[in-house]
Formats: sequence, structure tokens, C-alpha cells
Amino acid sequence: MLLKEIKDIRSIIKDWKKDGLTIGYVPTMGCLHEGHKSLIEKAVSENDKVVVSVFVNPTQFGPNEDYDSYPKNIDEDLEICKKSGASIVFNPDKEEMYFNNKSTTVSVSELTNVLCGAKRPGHFDGVCLVLSKFFNIITPDKAYFGEKDFQQIAVVKRMVRDLNINIEILSCPIVREKDGLAKSSRNVYLSKEERKAALVLNRSLSLAKEELKHGERNSKIIKDIIVNELNKEPLAKIDYVEIVDSESLNDLEIVNTTALIPIAVYIGKTRLIDNFIFNI
Amino acid sequence: MLLKEIKDIRSIIKDWKKDGLTIGYVPTMGCLHEGHKSLIEKAVSENDKVVVSVFVNPTQFGPNEDYDSYPKNIDEDLEICKKSGASIVFNPDKEEMYFNNKSTTVSVSELTNVLCGAKRPGHFDGVCLVLSKFFNIITPDKAYFGEKDFQQIAVVKRMVRDLNINIEILSCPIVREKDGLAKSSRNVYLSKEERKAALVLNRSLSLAKEELKHGERNSKIIKDIIVNELNKEPLAKIDYVEIVDSESLNDLEIVNTTALIPIAVYIGKTRLIDNFIFNI
Repeated sequence: MLLKEIKDIRSIIKDWKKDGLTIGYVPTMGCLHEGHKSLIEKAVSENDKVVVSVFVNPTQFGPNEDYDSYPKNIDEDLEICKKSGASIVFNPDKEEMYFNNKSTTVSVSELTNVLCGAKRPGHFDGVCLVLSKFFNIITPDKAYFGEKDFQQIAVVKRMVRDLNINIEILSCPIVREKDGLAKSSRNVYLSKEERKAALVLNRSLSLAKEELKHGERNSKIIKDIIVNELNKEPLAKIDYVEIVDSESLNDLEIVNTTALIPIAVYIGKTRLIDNFIFNI
Repeated sequence: MLLKEIKDIRSIIKDWKKDGLTIGYVPTMGCLHEGHKSLIEKAVSENDKVVVSVFVNPTQFGPNEDYDSYPKNIDEDLEICKKSGASIVFNPDKEEMYFNNKSTTVSVSELTNVLCGAKRPGHFDGVCLVLSKFFNIITPDKAYFGEKDFQQIAVVKRMVRDLNINIEILSCPIVREKDGLAKSSRNVYLSKEERKAALVLNRSLSLAKEELKHGERNSKIIKDIIVNELNKEPLAKIDYVEIVDSESLNDLEIVNTTALIPIAVYIGKTRLIDNFIFNI
């Protein structure tokens, strides 16, 4: 069922709660792909009811980012949600979500001054704000996030902890195309040539993973391997390549704990991210 | 019933919700007085169950404020709550409420750069943070605030609106001693001489109210009346005297809409606030 108004979804959720049903929530910006599908299916398997929001959230885009061009495909989103077993697709207008004189900020200070947070000022404030709102509207028991946005999961978990939000945050692994490219709504931006060039993200990470598996623990050496591979691709422009503690997101010079190896790379004008976790 | 742990209160509230009971919430910093009592009694009359929190919240005190000396009287608090019909008194330790590495901020940018917000930097961030937490822990249907902290009500209402918090915010009028002093936990700080001097707050506001009732609409003239009266009292030191729109909290030069007339005055070292609303 497609809903656009807060009062309508609140009314249905009130009834669900009265019946003691559990609610899973999958926040998305629409243009759903297999990665989202895996989240919805996990939510369906773990909850009585599942809500998927498909809201392109203006407050998490920077002034020079792709808010206006962000891909939309509501008909296919509905089809995917239905097939995956979601009960409600929530697709509010931005006027339903935001007042003109909105003045409340929700901000996580740690974890957000590195990686995408450093490169996209205000991005995680926008994420925290919209999720605070959706969490209060949908009041789910569990919420599901994709591990491609690994930093987002860390930030949301911190917010949930600090604000005593009574929601369990769960995640699903990155889903990839057959050729290894991480599924992303932004992949539709890529020309045929860029689509091919984009394979360099996963290829460079795979080389790093091999090196780690063979015992290399020096972050500089591993980063250089990634950077060198990325630099071989003329259409690729590195935004960042990092190796960080997977919990604190602090830089790791030596990989002596569970590490996140995240990269952000422009392929033409399209900014793509990818990562893997390495357990020592 | 006195509870100190989040998991214990969550467990009871879960049962209440299962039984379809409504919950009223009165947030306080303890040292309860008749003003709090009026809030608890209103909550009891409007809800099946009532939770009162008595938590001196460190994050809403400035570095040179009275956090360490803030009065506590948990035995009498329990007695007042019991007599007033509250179901739970929640008195968590600060370690139960805050992590050492807390990093989430909840901030209302409008409404907070005037009056007490201007004079107490960070105060309303602390209020918003702790209330976000208590709202998520207690999940009340209604929450009750005293009109002595009028700006707090405006800020909380804005936060609740902006974050889609599903709680109705209600308020009760200022409760006064027989001689007119607004009830406040901080009144216990006053020496006998200061207690007498403190009457100047209500006295100056009463003069202003008379003038408004007689038709005066020029804010400067009304403010001067308050300031002059306060200045007659040697123990009083003005922190602010303002006349603002009761909704936007913006300065009013002419009282042509519902006005808030708030004052903050040091009596010796004790900072007291008082106010009244004037409907034109």
C-alpha cells in the first residue's frame, strides 16, 4: 500500500501496535535495487509488518550535489516492495516532511568528521534529522541499513544509543552486480564507458583484501595498492581511500583490529562508494 | 514506585502499552514544589498512568551555574508524587543517562538565541537532549511543563513538531507563594532578606500588567516600568527584561499580538525568572 501522509501511516501503525504486531523499517531514497531488496526481505523475515520509505531527503544533499537529478522510479519501487512482502511504501512529499521554518538539528559529532562526513558537510545531520523523524513516525522495532553506507550505520547506531531510541539497528551485506560493481541507485548515472570504468572500485578493494589475507598489516602499503589501481583508470578520480577502526572510524596505521576499508571515487561526475570489512 | 534503571521503566511501560493505557509524563529536576504538583495532578487527571522524572540534568547547566549545588530532596519528592497520584518516579543516575563519549546533539536554532537561551549558552541543547532521551524511554502520550519556563515550552514544542515526536505538549500556569513569588526549586537558595527582596519580580510584572490593561502598548514604556521597579531593590540585578511575541519570541516594539513579558533577575547569587502572558 502506497501512503503519502503522516497521519495515514500513523493510523495504520497504531492499529498494528494494538494487535501486538512487530514492525520492521527499511529507509530508502527510492530507485530500489537488489541491495534494498535484500534489506526488505530480511525485514519481512524478522517482523510481522514492514514499512519501506522512499523519500529523496533534501536535507542530506549538499548545495552542489545531485538532489535535483536523483533518480526516481516509484512504479518499479512499488513492484519490488510488493514482491518482497513489504506492507507499506511511504512516499511523502517534502512539504509533508519539512516545515519552511524548521529549526531543529540532530547531529552526531564523533564519527562524522571523517570519510563521507568530511567530504559531504552536513550530510549526516540531514540523515540524522530525517531518520529521527521517520523513527518517530513509524516507531519500528527494527530498522535495516545496507553496509555499503557503512559510516551511516555507525552514525545511526550512535544516535540511537545516545537518544535512547528503542529501535534495533540491523544491516545487510553489500549486494553486487555479477561483475562486482556494488549496487547503487546512482549507477544509473553512468554511461556505458563509465559503467565499465566503475569496476575499478571493487577491483582495487579486492587487491587490498588479498594483501590483507596474505598478512600485510601496514595501512599505508594497503592504501597504496588501492590508490595505484584506481589511478590506472583514467575516468576515476579518488575522493578518499581510508583504513579505519570499524567502530570508532578512527584511522588505523596498523590493521590490528576489525578494520573498515572504505573508498569514495568519482567516475566522471558520479560519486560512488564501496568498502569491505576485514576481521583480523 | 521509585525506579532508577532504564530497562526497568521500559519493562513496565511495555506492559502498560500492551494494556492500552495512556501515559502522562512530568519531567522535573526534583525538589518538587506546588508548581510541579499542579503538573502531576493535571497529568493524573488526563492519563491512566503518570511518570515523573526527577533528574538533575548536567547537560543543561553552564560551567559556572549551580549544577553541583542544585537542591535535592528525593524523600519529599516521592511523598508529593505519591500523594498526587503518580505511578512511577524515575530517578536515574547520570551514568545511566549519559555515556562518556556521548556525541549526539539535539538543537533548536530559532527561539533559543533570545532570553534564557542567550544568557545561558547551551542550556536549551541540554534540555532538548535530555527530553529526547526521556521521551524515547517513557514514550508518553502527553507531557506537562510549567509556564514559568515559558521559553522551554516554546522550544520543546518546536522540537516535537520538527522531529514528529508523537507527544502532546501541555502546560500549567505559574504557581505562586501567597506573597506572589513564583514557586521555584531555586527559592531555597534565598536568605531571609533575599526572599523578601525577591518579591520585586512579581511586583514589577504586576505594575507592567496594570499598565497594559490600561491600554499602554509601547514596549519601551512598559519595560521601563519593570526596570525602574527592579532597580529600586538593592539586592536585585537585572539579567533581562523583555517583551516578545509569545509564539516566535521575537521582540515586540508595540504590543499588537499576544505578548510574553519575561524577566530574569539575580537576587544575590540566585537567578530567578518570572513572566506573564498578555492577550490583547
